[in-house]
Amino acid sequence: MSGHPTLGLAVIGAGRIGALHALNAARHTPNARLLWVADIDQVAAERAVAAAGDGKATTLIDEVLHDPGVTAVVVASPTDTHSAVMIAAAAAGKHILCEKPIALTLDATRAAIDAVSSSGLCIQIGFNRRFDPPFAQAREAIARGDIGRPWILKLVGRDPRIAPMTYLRASGGLFKDQAIHEFDCARWLMGIEVDTVYAAGSVLVEPALAEIGDVDTALTTLHFAGGALGVVDNCRQAVYGYDVRAEIHGSEGKLLVGYEGRTAVTLLQPNRVSHDHTDWFLERFTYAYRAELAAFVQCIITGAPPRATAEDGYQALRIAVAAGLSYKEHRPVRLEEVRNG
Amino acid sequence: MSGHPTLGLAVIGAGRIGALHALNAARHTPNARLLWVADIDQVAAERAVAAAGDGKATTLIDEVLHDPGVTAVVVASPTDTHSAVMIAAAAAGKHILCEKPIALTLDATRAAIDAVSSSGLCIQIGFNRRFDPPFAQAREAIARGDIGRPWILKLVGRDPRIAPMTYLRASGGLFKDQAIHEFDCARWLMGIEVDTVYAAGSVLVEPALAEIGDVDTALTTLHFAGGALGVVDNCRQAVYGYDVRAEIHGSEGKLLVGYEGRTAVTLLQPNRVSHDHTDWFLERFTYAYRAELAAFVQCIITGAPPRATAEDGYQALRIAVAAGLSYKEHRPVRLEEVRNG
Amino acid sequence: MSGHPTLGLAVIGAGRIGALHALNAARHTPNARLLWVADIDQVAAERAVAAAGDGKATTLIDEVLHDPGVTAVVVASPTDTHSAVMIAAAAAGKHILCEKPIALTLDATRAAIDAVSSSGLCIQIGFNRRFDPPFAQAREAIARGDIGRPWILKLVGRDPRIAPMTYLRASGGLFKDQAIHEFDCARWLMGIEVDTVYAAGSVLVEPALAEIGDVDTALTTLHFAGGALGVVDNCRQAVYGYDVRAEIHGSEGKLLVGYEGRTAVTLLQPNRVSHDHTDWFLERFTYAYRAELAAFVQCIITGAPPRATAEDGYQALRIAVAAGLSYKEHRPVRLEEVRNG
Amino acid sequence: MSGHPTLGLAVIGAGRIGALHALNAARHTPNARLLWVADIDQVAAERAVAAAGDGKATTLIDEVLHDPGVTAVVVASPTDTHSAVMIAAAAAGKHILCEKPIALTLDATRAAIDAVSSSGLCIQIGFNRRFDPPFAQAREAIARGDIGRPWILKLVGRDPRIAPMTYLRASGGLFKDQAIHEFDCARWLMGIEVDTVYAAGSVLVEPALAEIGDVDTALTTLHFAGGALGVVDNCRQAVYGYDVRAEIHGSEGKLLVGYEGRTAVTLLQPNRVSHDHTDWFLERFTYAYRAELAAFVQCIITGAPPRATAEDGYQALRIAVAAGLSYKEHRPVRLEEVRNG
Repeated sequence: MSGHPTLGLAVIGAGRIGALHALNAARHTPNARLLWVADIDQVAAERAVAAAGDGKATTLIDEVLHDPGVTAVVVASPTDTHSAVMIAAAAAGKHILCEKPIALTLDATRAAIDAVSSSGLCIQIGFNRRFDPPFAQAREAIARGDIGRPWILKLVGRDPRIAPMTYLRASGGLFKDQAIHEFDCARWLMGIEVDTVYAAGSVLVEPALAEIGDVDTALTTLHFAGGALGVVDNCRQAVYGYDVRAEIHGSEGKLLVGYEGRTAVTLLQPNRVSHDHTDWFLERFTYAYRAELAAFVQCIITGAPPRATAEDGYQALRIAVAAGLSYKEHRPVRLEEVRNG
Repeated sequence: MSGHPTLGLAVIGAGRIGALHALNAARHTPNARLLWVADIDQVAAERAVAAAGDGKATTLIDEVLHDPGVTAVVVASPTDTHSAVMIAAAAAGKHILCEKPIALTLDATRAAIDAVSSSGLCIQIGFNRRFDPPFAQAREAIARGDIGRPWILKLVGRDPRIAPMTYLRASGGLFKDQAIHEFDCARWLMGIEVDTVYAAGSVLVEPALAEIGDVDTALTTLHFAGGALGVVDNCRQAVYGYDVRAEIHGSEGKLLVGYEGRTAVTLLQPNRVSHDHTDWFLERFTYAYRAELAAFVQCIITGAPPRATAEDGYQALRIAVAAGLSYKEHRPVRLEEVRNG
Repeated sequence: MSGHPTLGLAVIGAGRIGALHALNAARHTPNARLLWVADIDQVAAERAVAAAGDGKATTLIDEVLHDPGVTAVVVASPTDTHSAVMIAAAAAGKHILCEKPIALTLDATRAAIDAVSSSGLCIQIGFNRRFDPPFAQAREAIARGDIGRPWILKLVGRDPRIAPMTYLRASGGLFKDQAIHEFDCARWLMGIEVDTVYAAGSVLVEPALAEIGDVDTALTTLHFAGGALGVVDNCRQAVYGYDVRAEIHGSEGKLLVGYEGRTAVTLLQPNRVSHDHTDWFLERFTYAYRAELAAFVQCIITGAPPRATAEDGYQALRIAVAAGLSYKEHRPVRLEEVRNG
Repeated sequence: MSGHPTLGLAVIGAGRIGALHALNAARHTPNARLLWVADIDQVAAERAVAAAGDGKATTLIDEVLHDPGVTAVVVASPTDTHSAVMIAAAAAGKHILCEKPIALTLDATRAAIDAVSSSGLCIQIGFNRRFDPPFAQAREAIARGDIGRPWILKLVGRDPRIAPMTYLRASGGLFKDQAIHEFDCARWLMGIEVDTVYAAGSVLVEPALAEIGDVDTALTTLHFAGGALGVVDNCRQAVYGYDVRAEIHGSEGKLLVGYEGRTAVTLLQPNRVSHDHTDWFLERFTYAYRAELAAFVQCIITGAPPRATAEDGYQALRIAVAAGLSYKEHRPVRLEEVRNG
């Protein structure tokens, strides 16, 4: 840890995730220091700075990008600004950790990648599962052959409660906004590409979603190259708590990744044994977010490639686009149909 | 229990399941007695009788069907004889517990049902999940509203090791032979009908299956009337043990049905906590098979309808046929496309 | 199984356990048949026979003991009659499976053992843990060295609800009636003898026990030869269900034996994950009771020594007597102080 | 959080626990800042400061105690210096968080308490279980009556591997060094005082301990006022991992506090289901140590009494002394026999 100059970090966007990245940058990231939090809402930026206990607040992204002390930026602004901020940051020579997705269309995503790819900068995408210890351990176990060849992958991604319609309207829809985590995770855990998807979707939680062509519940079948099969299930609401799990059935065994207990307390009463469970992704992925930022700083220092590249962001979006098309046209969609840059 | 005359039972077919039914009829079924075990192989019939500790062995089905002491028969002969035995038994006025499936085609199934339906006899199909205490408890919990409206159903059915090709060739294929249990379970647990299926299948365990157009691994998406979604995953081999589980995510909670531990012993060693698990369906469904036979006898005595009717057998097969068609034609198939008798 | 003549069994005592033994003898014991159930209450005997579906009821023990078809008897009469019935049965040349304890005093127990020991008959004591698959597996794992040398043994024995005072008054007290199971289990699992005990007891559930010098809650420390330590905790009431568990911490690992779930259904609701649990010993030890009787019949056939001998019954009672003395005198008691026949 | 001046903290002692407190003071404690780390080993102090990312290193405790910016000190120096540092710090007007135990004898402990008690300063003892979320939740559940009246308490405290003899020789012995955590926890969870203890001890792990009259394995029975019973089991080595758990059986239910899994990954292989487990107390009590320091700072700010007082430290030591005496004299020891200040 010691022996290396401390990197200056800036966080763009002081919403829920931005504030968390700011806190982690200030307190939990070796070799790094939080210099700035930028947000169009000065109060939000100041609140994030106060909670982090370090850095300065600003409403001016340019001030941040022109600060020579800033080595890298974390892009946690609204999704529709990701690509513009990413391009500006790269132009200013800053390394970038960008929240997913880069953009809501494949063309815009490819354009952003093209704009930054020649820079030689470290561009990392915020797919948090890749930095979560249980998921990372499962990935290693699969790569090591603990379960032989993977045959069936099952991923679950369910939020505890549905977001407000204002958020949902701007989100890009369930496939690009929520399922994209599982689509990325599928490629990463299996180490194989998806070649066809079939998505079944339904409006069961929030009737208003039907009017905008979105769904709140979906089952997406993934056909992997070589014959392995996968299914991703997503739901915008799970009243029993945040539910992100994986099961991988292989030729030599099965892996389960889950995280249901929050504390280690069990209560036995007449006719019932009960315990509590994890209720929210900030709680579930506390360590993952820290590890994500630490890994990013480490990549900048060592020049190693990030664990989640911009191309990974593109490919996950491509699956999401194919899933959306499959849902709309009630048919399986081969990824070849969806342009690949 | 007392106060009712004992019913005479006969088992047709002395294979694995037939022998188990004979044992249960002789030892574990209130108000019933095992009178006969019939099999074309006299030695097999005698072995089953010896293990059961009661009854007589025969190779002649007619002898059994003409015995006025026999009130009901359990049809556990090879699948391709089910409908013929069922029709003959009904003609002889015997109540029938028939192993699934009734037949391998919808036409043959419908014909068998038509032939027996006017008899007024009790016709029960051997869908063992319906009689398994955990599954039955889940069904009651759903019907009672414990999890609100069911939104996503996930069923797993995996055998510990693949059967020999001789069995597989005659089985009717994964959808009709293995997945049919889950298809029936889906209708029964949800209390809603399936209207569309999409099946993804693959040959990952036994390459020889490709030659006969069958698969050993499949993911079948179920679209239920009203919008709920389901996915059934089947595999002919799970080296870690027999794996039959259910998960139902609903508007008010989630139910899990599983059964992984065989004994209640846990071993903690450096870096590992481990326990054993259930390895075979005869072990997993011991109680279910007893409950199934006991429920059948009870239906005969009381005249109540069986928990799994011949029509249930037809409808499960219809889903299996649709799944097979979906797999073959790489498209979702509406159940309307598959004739309904 | 086949090839051996069927043994005739008789059950003396048609209470809760006697009726279960009768059912198991009639239905679940290979190579055996139930001939008689004897009880001073003719109605109880008839009820047990009806439930078993075989055998004859009688109030006359002599009729049973003089029946040459009876090879072995199960002694399940009230505890204060065990030794007299055992002696009479041995005199009549019948093998004996005797419920624990043989008698409530060491002298009476030794006298009964002396009276039957020269007979060459198989005398087995009904310590059900020894026949329970999880406990038996733990015993084998320890003997095999899976956890190295055992250092700390912890046994739990708690009933779901306290028995009526009429039962408790005649029971011989918590140590001889309830804890004796754990005392036997301790010797058997560890394969080492106890040399000193210290018992702490308390009246927390039923105040009336204080008047008769008994306790309803106790913690008994066991010092094993060679230095290993153990603690047995017993309580007459556990509202959350029947609770019989073991933990053995050794030089190379730890074993846990538990059995809390009754079905494999888990319910997730907001802020709670819950499942049911086993509530009663007849449910918990269903298989153990069958295995116990089957093992007894097997010992008679093969001449092998039983898994729980009369001497084991004596030694467990000796620990119970020492525990009672320790509780009364508030001091550790060496087993040497308690006569050993 | 905001609105309050930041408290200056100093850590005395830069060993394993001191370094952790320094890190937590610098990064994880709201309203606080790390100013100093003092250790007689300058290199150790500097290493702790570097890891914490804040503060200055020194070998001079006086420098720290005379710094007017220092509001409170954390005493994490060797046990035999605790009372002297505590007295000096109180004389300098600093609030104190002292690692357990205050001293190795009751007299020295009482003298230290007397010396600081009139100061009006906040004196908190480092009993980490009191700040651990699962333990704290169990404590609340008991106080709330979730399990009715507590009848049997069982606490486990086992280290993954035995410390070197140099540490053990200076530790004060198993009862004062290791079991003291459970003794404090017992008083705190139950909310009742212990009135008699009986300790069984043994040398099973490290033969050299016998020479210094210490043990490595112990079972201590606790008789609580009012009749409830408890047992504490400790072992210096558990090869399967760090093992700190609690079970409280009460009139209306049972609570379990455990923490065996480290990640949420489960691997199913033929005949085995396995997962990893927590291996070390720094990992197990990460949150507890942060909460402990945060609570201390909060007490200083608000003037509220600490959750673990110096008197709590005295009473836990008193039980440890009684346990040591019980072990030595092979008899139960009433706490009245052990002086109470």
